[in-house]
Amino acid sequence: MVTRVTLPNAPRGRPRDSRAHQGILTATAELVTELGYAATSIGAVAARAGVGKDTVYRRWSGKAELVYEAVFTETEAAPAPDTGSLVGDLTALLEALIQEFSAPAAAAALPGLLADFAADPGLQARIRSEFLAPAKAGLMAVFERAAQRGETDPGLPVDLVLDTLAGAVLFHVGLVGEQPGRQLATRLAAMVGRGIETR
Amino acid sequence: MVTRVTLPNAPRGRPRDSRAHQGILTATAELVTELGYAATSIGAVAARAGVGKDTVYRRWSGKAELVYEAVFTETEAAPAPDTGSLVGDLTALLEALIQEFSAPAAAAALPGLLADFAADPGLQARIRSEFLAPAKAGLMAVFERAAQRGETDPGLPVDLVLDTLAGAVLFHVGLVGEQPGRQLATRLAAMVGRGIETR
Repeated sequence: MVTRVTLPNAPRGRPRDSRAHQGILTATAELVTELGYAATSIGAVAARAGVGKDTVYRRWSGKAELVYEAVFTETEAAPAPDTGSLVGDLTALLEALIQEFSAPAAAAALPGLLADFAADPGLQARIRSEFLAPAKAGLMAVFERAAQRGETDPGLPVDLVLDTLAGAVLFHVGLVGEQPGRQLATRLAAMVGRGIETR
Repeated sequence: MVTRVTLPNAPRGRPRDSRAHQGILTATAELVTELGYAATSIGAVAARAGVGKDTVYRRWSGKAELVYEAVFTETEAAPAPDTGSLVGDLTALLEALIQEFSAPAAAAALPGLLADFAADPGLQARIRSEFLAPAKAGLMAVFERAAQRGETDPGLPVDLVLDTLAGAVLFHVGLVGEQPGRQLATRLAAMVGRGIETR
């Protein structure tokens, strides 16, 4: 039997809310990794986190939003390091993207999660505005340094390059399911870097 | 009331089977376009095609395989034209890929279909061996002509370039859902073409 002691001046609700919130996110990431995206249900998440389904639905509109938060927003991406060259910076950025996309929970979630986002107009808009935002910020920093070094012309099509890098990694790692060899980031960075640098 | 007349020497079963087969594929493409991939069910396909669900399951393992055949294998892709340059050939190949991916049934099917293929090991292997095979054949012809003209070195990484082109188009058109502007094929072809050509 659990006896709950409430301290008179403790902020009510918050700590327990915050623990429940974190427990739901942890249960979600675990279930997606164990069962895959399609087989993960809000009911199973709630059961593992020890809360009611209504507690989950009070915070998230549905499975896609919940999985997105649990798998992709919990870790802070480190800014792309300044390697001194466009191709070096792109390689570092791609290595981080490949690592993020091939982590067990992310790899299990990605295709189904993106399909659910793409099928819902409200969520679809968030693929660019939220899902791709950290990678875009990193790419813009890389382009700014490259322009300062005179490696590229200003006004590169950031979104096109971003779709190309993210799309290539998604296709290779997330869809075809091939293990990303050590050469993937290097070769992709060399190809795209050569394709956009000033001659 | 329908009276069925069987001619004594007509091949039995085939014509009716073939009509049923085509009717199922047509119903599938229509429903995916109207309802989206997730909301299309084998039951609804069978009802619209006027057959039993068992007739569908006798031919296809499930929804993913059926939708793949209905949406992506019914039209024969024309070989990429010989434009006389690597960038020109890549542009033509990308224009065809963009047109294929943004046709109504394909656009509605792609994200959910690829997620279902990626989630099943048996189907996942067919993304490269079947789904990407026509585009790969086209790309190999483009590379062969480019090597003969001395624009590229032999031994280009065909799969990497293919994942990059297909991934970029999938991301831009299929996931983010942006209308492919007239510049998409040109700019992507210029970037990737510059990235792989011999200097």
